[in-house]
Amino acid sequence: MGRRSDRRRVLRLRAGATSSRGDSLAVEEPMEIRVGGRQVAVTMRTPGDDFELATGFLVSEGMLTAARDVVAVRYCATGRPDRTYNQVDVTVAAHVAVPDDARRLFVSSACGVCGKDSLDQVRTSARWSVADDPARVSSTLLAGLPDRLRAGQAVFERTGGLHAAGLFTANGDLLCLREDVGRHNAVDKVVGWALAADRLPLRGCILQVSGRLSFELVQKAWMAGVPVLSAVSAPSTLAVDLAVEAGMTVAGFVRDGGMNIYAGAERVDVPVADDRSA
Amino acid sequence: MGRRSDRRRVLRLRAGATSSRGDSLAVEEPMEIRVGGRQVAVTMRTPGDDFELATGFLVSEGMLTAARDVVAVRYCATGRPDRTYNQVDVTVAAHVAVPDDARRLFVSSACGVCGKDSLDQVRTSARWSVADDPARVSSTLLAGLPDRLRAGQAVFERTGGLHAAGLFTANGDLLCLREDVGRHNAVDKVVGWALAADRLPLRGCILQVSGRLSFELVQKAWMAGVPVLSAVSAPSTLAVDLAVEAGMTVAGFVRDGGMNIYAGAERVDVPVADDRSA
Repeated sequence: MGRRSDRRRVLRLRAGATSSRGDSLAVEEPMEIRVGGRQVAVTMRTPGDDFELATGFLVSEGMLTAARDVVAVRYCATGRPDRTYNQVDVTVAAHVAVPDDARRLFVSSACGVCGKDSLDQVRTSARWSVADDPARVSSTLLAGLPDRLRAGQAVFERTGGLHAAGLFTANGDLLCLREDVGRHNAVDKVVGWALAADRLPLRGCILQVSGRLSFELVQKAWMAGVPVLSAVSAPSTLAVDLAVEAGMTVAGFVRDGGMNIYAGAERVDVPVADDRSA
Repeated sequence: MGRRSDRRRVLRLRAGATSSRGDSLAVEEPMEIRVGGRQVAVTMRTPGDDFELATGFLVSEGMLTAARDVVAVRYCATGRPDRTYNQVDVTVAAHVAVPDDARRLFVSSACGVCGKDSLDQVRTSARWSVADDPARVSSTLLAGLPDRLRAGQAVFERTGGLHAAGLFTANGDLLCLREDVGRHNAVDKVVGWALAADRLPLRGCILQVSGRLSFELVQKAWMAGVPVLSAVSAPSTLAVDLAVEAGMTVAGFVRDGGMNIYAGAERVDVPVADDRSA
């Protein structure tokens, strides 16, 4: 298993003083995802939870939906120690459909060429409805999730360089937290954890992420059946449009006790009388 | 031309008060990049500077190195208004080699399956040496670049949701600034600008980016011949290792007047006696 952080020599400049010292950096390494021996994707990731990353990616791509879909996950024996832990092969059950051109998976998340196409594609491939999820969450609970995410980020503390994704119940219980240099990988790792625990779809759950909200992250949340997605920073237009299409709740700029609700506000209980009908 | 920001209705919670209002979001839309009519990539991007994004991407992939490599860049006529501005076709000159399987380009930035492979691949495809670039920059100048980047970010001000990349001379003159929801796209747009201006390789220049430094961004800087790369946040291990391999200067955590130099410190003039030999 590769290390999640590693040290490099750094020249440090602070307040007019200069010093040379070792510093911890987040590790970034390529990982190849294979299905039945065939390459379907290569992602740059932080080592750790590699099997969850591989299977979670395949959930996002619509190939896997339940623990029984997976027969085995293993590192490939390459004969080269520096490669062995960077190739993961997923053996899927006989009932799982594998596209002839599995490579196509790699670009499917963005292969529509207008926003409307992209929304259509996700809708047709989504296995679960999140629109009918009766989950309700309090805004006070949502406001506290970024701090709880940060508190759980072991590697970020050392490196300042990792995204995180945390899965919580509507009551605020932390189910799973994962870190990665890529925000999409952190989400895939959480989804892979949920697949192995056979908890898909993730009804009633909140997915909290550390950065911005792109179309791709909303897509991954929908493919995992998550009804509430919350981010520390800004969403894009297409992220919000997809959430509306899915019937998902999306909060952004969750910081300093405040937040913006971009979609699905009916799931969020606010502590004050509001003018949302205005 | 698509819009760079667009408005969505948002429920805003601040200090116990709730209000519903319109809010500006960064636009995210897919864009297909074609070469001679054949699709080579689809990227999720913020509309604007689309031709620069397409050609800059092809510089990063090693296909283009000079303005004369490009015969024409145009939007594809699709007959569907919502698609027309999301497909860009690049006609390259007869002397430009186009791989048979142009699709392969899409994954080439990460197709090594160990870090060492990835470094080897970039080294063999890099057209220019940056190691011999005699540029020198002052740490005081570097420290001021993030504020200058932010000052130039028109769309970020409205949306809070965009990455930026700015190209500066070693004297601190701003040459080009571009924004995008994807940090890699912002860099590709800057590189595409430089290609059209026939300024490659970008000897003596500083590329300042708003976020973290991944392997991919160092690769793009190297493919454009940039000797100094500076980021507001943390680099990954593989980003630093590639910069060392290239002989590139890399600064990270450039904020609050301080910074860390991870590679190529000999290009950075510091205002005080230092102990870097320690």
